[in-house]
Amino acid sequence: MGRVTMRRPVVRVRDGAVDQRADVLAVEEPMEIRVNGHPLTVTMRTPGNDFDLALGFLLSEGVIRSAGDVVTVRYCAGAQVDGSNSYNVVDVRLAAGVPEPDTSVQRNFYTTSSCGLCGKASLDAVRTASAWSVSDDPARVSPDVLATLPDRLRSAQQVFDRTGGVHAAGLFTISGDLIAAREDVGRHNAVDKVIGACVRTEGLPARGTILMVSSRASFELVQKAVMAGIPILAAVSAPSSLAVDLAEEAGLTLLGFVRGSSMNVYAGHHRVLGTLRD
Amino acid sequence: MGRVTMRRPVVRVRDGAVDQRADVLAVEEPMEIRVNGHPLTVTMRTPGNDFDLALGFLLSEGVIRSAGDVVTVRYCAGAQVDGSNSYNVVDVRLAAGVPEPDTSVQRNFYTTSSCGLCGKASLDAVRTASAWSVSDDPARVSPDVLATLPDRLRSAQQVFDRTGGVHAAGLFTISGDLIAAREDVGRHNAVDKVIGACVRTEGLPARGTILMVSSRASFELVQKAVMAGIPILAAVSAPSSLAVDLAEEAGLTLLGFVRGSSMNVYAGHHRVLGTLRD
Repeated sequence: MGRVTMRRPVVRVRDGAVDQRADVLAVEEPMEIRVNGHPLTVTMRTPGNDFDLALGFLLSEGVIRSAGDVVTVRYCAGAQVDGSNSYNVVDVRLAAGVPEPDTSVQRNFYTTSSCGLCGKASLDAVRTASAWSVSDDPARVSPDVLATLPDRLRSAQQVFDRTGGVHAAGLFTISGDLIAAREDVGRHNAVDKVIGACVRTEGLPARGTILMVSSRASFELVQKAVMAGIPILAAVSAPSSLAVDLAEEAGLTLLGFVRGSSMNVYAGHHRVLGTLRD
Repeated sequence: MGRVTMRRPVVRVRDGAVDQRADVLAVEEPMEIRVNGHPLTVTMRTPGNDFDLALGFLLSEGVIRSAGDVVTVRYCAGAQVDGSNSYNVVDVRLAAGVPEPDTSVQRNFYTTSSCGLCGKASLDAVRTASAWSVSDDPARVSPDVLATLPDRLRSAQQVFDRTGGVHAAGLFTISGDLIAAREDVGRHNAVDKVIGACVRTEGLPARGTILMVSSRASFELVQKAVMAGIPILAAVSAPSSLAVDLAEEAGLTLLGFVRGSSMNVYAGHHRVLGTLRD
């Protein structure tokens, strides 16, 4: 794309000394996702893998379940005043019979009509929307493999080394082999791009895989893993309470603080070899 | 509130050894913001300072400009099936004459009808929405003061020490004195809570202040600073390209990688003492 990073001047202060040099920044641009021509959402993202981002977002939100639900994905033409393409508006055409999302889909995902807004309602919404169950996934993984994933993800990151400013998500096999890795200024976007790559290659549900993220584990990242049928989510940083609740409810294995040879298992530790002590 | 952190069991793996213990997690719960009873948005947040969060969000989005634009802020009663309050739905009643936001306000903030979706349109939208200019703020700050802010922010963080899982935002005077600090699982929320505290105490525009954040600096964080009239934004991590663009356009001073005695000035370095060399 040539739009993933950008050089900008920066004034550096180091122990009182001042100099000026060029710095490399991660690019951030808005991207609008349309469905059948109707605007659905805008996300601030790093350009690149935009179709994966759109497909992964729609999968995570329960709008599509496979590549078969999609006819075309394309940039809207002539979006700018001068007739040039901004490459910031992506339209997804759904197959016949696939219901269009309510434009208030994001809000509705967390609320139900039967109950006030609470964590429990959020968990229920994911269970209702998910096409697959991860609770019966027989995958098992060794702590030794898990310990290698942060470095493997880091070595797959091209932008971070230049900017220090992006998040990464990587999908790995149980043996630790990389399936797909993506970077973005937004951690949700990085995960959506990985899941979208799986939609495109018809790799869902992603049974027997591990999703490694460079960030903390929020409710929404667990939601995305569950929606993609990924049984194991490992994060470099801490999970939130609702992330753990959803992982337990869905039968997903959730790890946090995966650093060196140490890690915390917050849910589903039966999948982590050596942690069951009868 | 008693809902900011939560104890949960965790299986710990350390160099092959396994034990089980209780861990403290940051609580994450959905919160819906309503305006005059109409649902506007849902954010996943750490409970606490919810009214500040609502006010800060509305200020950042250009819906309100001061406490005078608001009549009441309250939790909606009886939101759950059993009649109890979830404390997750906050309704803001606007003063007479204050226009209600379009429910598609978030999307519109980044788009204009005259142009395709691009970074430039995003910058224009902030300029149009902002009530104050930060470009003429005469504040100057020394690198020595800036270098102290990460530690001062950290010592104001109560939840992070227990969980390692939350972001923080702190508003400081030019001398480095803390005005307000807030924590949240979401970095946008932490900033909205700080700005909302300023709305409530009628401290806006926040001239002559520094906003320090524990995260990277995205477009949206610069937007929030500009909307609150804060002239200096300092981040522990990297800025994005669009964050720098908006800072330059708005005349805001933007620092990144503020760590120890080193820091990078990406925009508005005239406010950082000692960096001008004629």
